[in-house]
Amino acid sequence: MKKILVLNPNSSTAVTDKIAASYALCPATGPYSVQFDTLAVAPPGIETQRDVEEVTIPTCDHFKANPAQGYVIGCFSDPGLYLCRQELDVPVVGIAESAFLTGMSLGGRFGIMAIKQGSIGRHMRALHQYGLMDFLAADRPLNLGVQELLDEESSIGRLIEVGRTLRDVDGARSLILGCASMGAYRPALQKELGIPVIDPVQAAVARMVGLLTLGYVPE
Amino acid sequence: MKKILVLNPNSSTAVTDKIAASYALCPATGPYSVQFDTLAVAPPGIETQRDVEEVTIPTCDHFKANPAQGYVIGCFSDPGLYLCRQELDVPVVGIAESAFLTGMSLGGRFGIMAIKQGSIGRHMRALHQYGLMDFLAADRPLNLGVQELLDEESSIGRLIEVGRTLRDVDGARSLILGCASMGAYRPALQKELGIPVIDPVQAAVARMVGLLTLGYVPE
Repeated sequence: MKKILVLNPNSSTAVTDKIAASYALCPATGPYSVQFDTLAVAPPGIETQRDVEEVTIPTCDHFKANPAQGYVIGCFSDPGLYLCRQELDVPVVGIAESAFLTGMSLGGRFGIMAIKQGSIGRHMRALHQYGLMDFLAADRPLNLGVQELLDEESSIGRLIEVGRTLRDVDGARSLILGCASMGAYRPALQKELGIPVIDPVQAAVARMVGLLTLGYVPE
Repeated sequence: MKKILVLNPNSSTAVTDKIAASYALCPATGPYSVQFDTLAVAPPGIETQRDVEEVTIPTCDHFKANPAQGYVIGCFSDPGLYLCRQELDVPVVGIAESAFLTGMSLGGRFGIMAIKQGSIGRHMRALHQYGLMDFLAADRPLNLGVQELLDEESSIGRLIEVGRTLRDVDGARSLILGCASMGAYRPALQKELGIPVIDPVQAAVARMVGLLTLGYVPE
């Protein structure tokens, strides 16, 4: 069976488990199986610019050492995306760019829920780089760390609060969860707020299935 | 089995057959079957603004009369897209917007092969409307009509000629076939020119599979 490899580029297996569980909320991927790996040589969460830079080359090297038909970088900073695309000849996608593309394709502008204030500058640079700044309603921080986000009971209230502000104050017509491990919140958040909630891992795997089906390799 | 309905909104069953055949060049659609319909009450090709306007309401009405889980408007003018989205509660996509989204997602700028000079103004309005003008390298006319395009032997040389100009003069990094019935040209053109060639019907069905998988309805 053809394989899509999703890498959690931090060293927390609890985060990897969350990523795999949130993807399991989606239906089948056709002829592709999805494997979720953890990057052992990495910080337990990717929150700072240093964290991002540290995992870039290891992410690419992990993919090169683990053959698959397509690769998903499971971190909202898309670390190593262009390095991977340069050094691998199969499709590689980032979860942030995939979430942005999904958000813009739904109509209206999307809101982003960043984990922390310090992530927003990276998101803005990414949106400019991808040419998608016009599709952004706003980006607001949850002020929760990657580890804190694992506690669903204490986090959901804050997600609803920020999501409501993005929807009602900023005019977002869809919401992007700005971290790889937040997919489990999608059903409750979508039900509460009544607009599409985009889990970036789900968006990236669905996009990868499309790329593999059509035989396209992003450059 | 869940159904995706692709409508050829002109009355030429030869065009519908071409659309179905070009889609068959792609692999499986997972749990979805794809049905190809022809709009009986329509011109044999959609080439003018009047043609577009004439099929808008019939396209929407055809969908309303034929239940499916998702609808694809199989004409590069995306006739009736927003009418359908307003009046149906399942995903509806146009093949042009789907091709544009695919092209931009591959990196670099895309070139469009319009069937005729008169189509280009519509494409430009669509790109502006979708917010995607920055992703366009150029749009050049084949100067072939919908019916002429059915003759593969006489058309392929012209497609290669225009594609080469889009690639070498305009800097396109991918090429979009600007009509629903051109998918059969994709393999030869891609082989000859060495860059991704996007058939809009294939792009739209793959996108629809992703939308249905993730449970999103574009507005």
